[in-house]
Amino acid sequence: MPQTTNLNDIAQALRERDDFVILTHQYPDGDTVGSAYALCRALRKMGKRSRVIINGKLDKKFNFLQNNYEEQDFEYKTVVTVDIAAKQLLGDLQEEFGGKVDISVDHHVSNDHFAKLSYVDPKAANTENVLELIKLLGTEIDKDMANAIYTGICTDTGCFKFSNVTSATMRAAAEMMDLGCDSTEINRVMFDLKSMARIRMEKAVLDSLTLHADGKIAVVNTTIELEHETGVGDTDMDGIASIPRQIEGVIIGITIKEKDGGKYRISIRTLGCCDASRIGAEFGGGGHHAAAGCSITGSLYDVKSRIVEAAEAELRRAGEL
Amino acid sequence: MPQTTNLNDIAQALRERDDFVILTHQYPDGDTVGSAYALCRALRKMGKRSRVIINGKLDKKFNFLQNNYEEQDFEYKTVVTVDIAAKQLLGDLQEEFGGKVDISVDHHVSNDHFAKLSYVDPKAANTENVLELIKLLGTEIDKDMANAIYTGICTDTGCFKFSNVTSATMRAAAEMMDLGCDSTEINRVMFDLKSMARIRMEKAVLDSLTLHADGKIAVVNTTIELEHETGVGDTDMDGIASIPRQIEGVIIGITIKEKDGGKYRISIRTLGCCDASRIGAEFGGGGHHAAAGCSITGSLYDVKSRIVEAAEAELRRAGEL
Repeated sequence: MPQTTNLNDIAQALRERDDFVILTHQYPDGDTVGSAYALCRALRKMGKRSRVIINGKLDKKFNFLQNNYEEQDFEYKTVVTVDIAAKQLLGDLQEEFGGKVDISVDHHVSNDHFAKLSYVDPKAANTENVLELIKLLGTEIDKDMANAIYTGICTDTGCFKFSNVTSATMRAAAEMMDLGCDSTEINRVMFDLKSMARIRMEKAVLDSLTLHADGKIAVVNTTIELEHETGVGDTDMDGIASIPRQIEGVIIGITIKEKDGGKYRISIRTLGCCDASRIGAEFGGGGHHAAAGCSITGSLYDVKSRIVEAAEAELRRAGEL
Repeated sequence: MPQTTNLNDIAQALRERDDFVILTHQYPDGDTVGSAYALCRALRKMGKRSRVIINGKLDKKFNFLQNNYEEQDFEYKTVVTVDIAAKQLLGDLQEEFGGKVDISVDHHVSNDHFAKLSYVDPKAANTENVLELIKLLGTEIDKDMANAIYTGICTDTGCFKFSNVTSATMRAAAEMMDLGCDSTEINRVMFDLKSMARIRMEKAVLDSLTLHADGKIAVVNTTIELEHETGVGDTDMDGIASIPRQIEGVIIGITIKEKDGGKYRISIRTLGCCDASRIGAEFGGGGHHAAAGCSITGSLYDVKSRIVEAAEAELRRAGEL
């Protein structure tokens, strides 16, 4: 019978068991990968066998998390997932592991308790939960572990900029710094470094920028051709959707991304009273108050007209137009 | 006789005196303004008369620091400077105040002790020094003060991204969050919000980008015409100089800014072993290892050739070419 439990029970279960595989979610990001390596290293320090399974392609900027990490070959007996809210997010790993996840440590309130034992605490980063767990386990936190935990914290908070940051988040990062983590270099690699492809894409995105509704709506778009031309990868596209809403006076920022077959993937970002999820819902999409998405099929002109119209309606509903 | 002292002596001097003016440095930034308002509010809570003199034009993004702040009219008896390393940085205020600064609270190691009593501690942000001082004074830290202190910390650290951040910086920010500061909104206004002029300037800067020395040197330039066309102000230009070095593989990033009379102002940013100050020194400029500057007069073509040549020489010196 699946259950949600406290962190002490998770620690106890880890102590009692051995031969761990720790799974990240697909399209692995800093928080899932940081959680996995930090916990794996802690279990090894306890004399247990443990390995991380990266679910998909690891972006090279995370390679340093594998420093001083050796692969271990063994028959796994315990399956742990980190930063995963539902087994569907296991992607290709779902077939092998979907039905047999023993322990889940997660920070998504939407976690559907697919694991036999789940700990869900909506901290800014899941590595904050992993840090607490490791403290309960009582293992020393070395520099490699501190780097993994710091990476999860800084990447899931936009370098401490997002609304999910709490004072506890800041203090957890401070602890990792005291343990010698390479915070400056990690920040540089995660937040400063841009590929030439990304630079080209940003330039093209800014070229496509149009303002509507007295500058309260900003729209940018990307095309398949542009993606090929610039050579951007998936991680190069991170944060593109936040560009239009950054403009002074803009309340609704819209990013239209061309997909195959005349389909466009739309990202909507809003401020204040305007509800992004209402706009997305107009086209069968959804999301949160400040960030939502949907897909529309048609010509770019048609798609853009329809989404701008829906955004204007939302501005009016919120009394902003 | 000017002296450098400890924070207790500064607190004692503040307790003994009254009728304070607190001066910011010219081209006021978040740290000097945050320091001034936090300290001013603390002194008022102690029942003293105190006012801030903003040295130059305050960018509108800092207006919220003046919430619940009323002007007080009185003859000043005590002059305090915050975040100011030398009286030359008083600019237009130097004539009136230059010779009579009683107390200086600063975080620049280069502080030349121009005040009668100076406290200099090279923390990431000077508001961290002001926070310690206010704790010594024993006044309650209200939300407006927490906002002022947080603003100084986040702006002087690039939202906790720069190499000057310590674990103490993170903990000071955490304290301000616990005191109810509007960290999310402050982060948005300081780090996300961009004027359309800035967006246009970024686009133009990216258009001007050229790579040299196998992509190890990146150069961008801005023109007077462009500044007029885009309508950028000084604060819109913040961070422009960091763009070229953000590109993957770039070791030396150079920004060439056209000034009047055929003069170009050059910003140099380097990574690792390459020394920006050596490059700047070639043209009579200077700075630090990772960030330096200089001015060169000539045609853009000539200026660019000369600075790229000097950068290539520095790459060779550092064994990078």
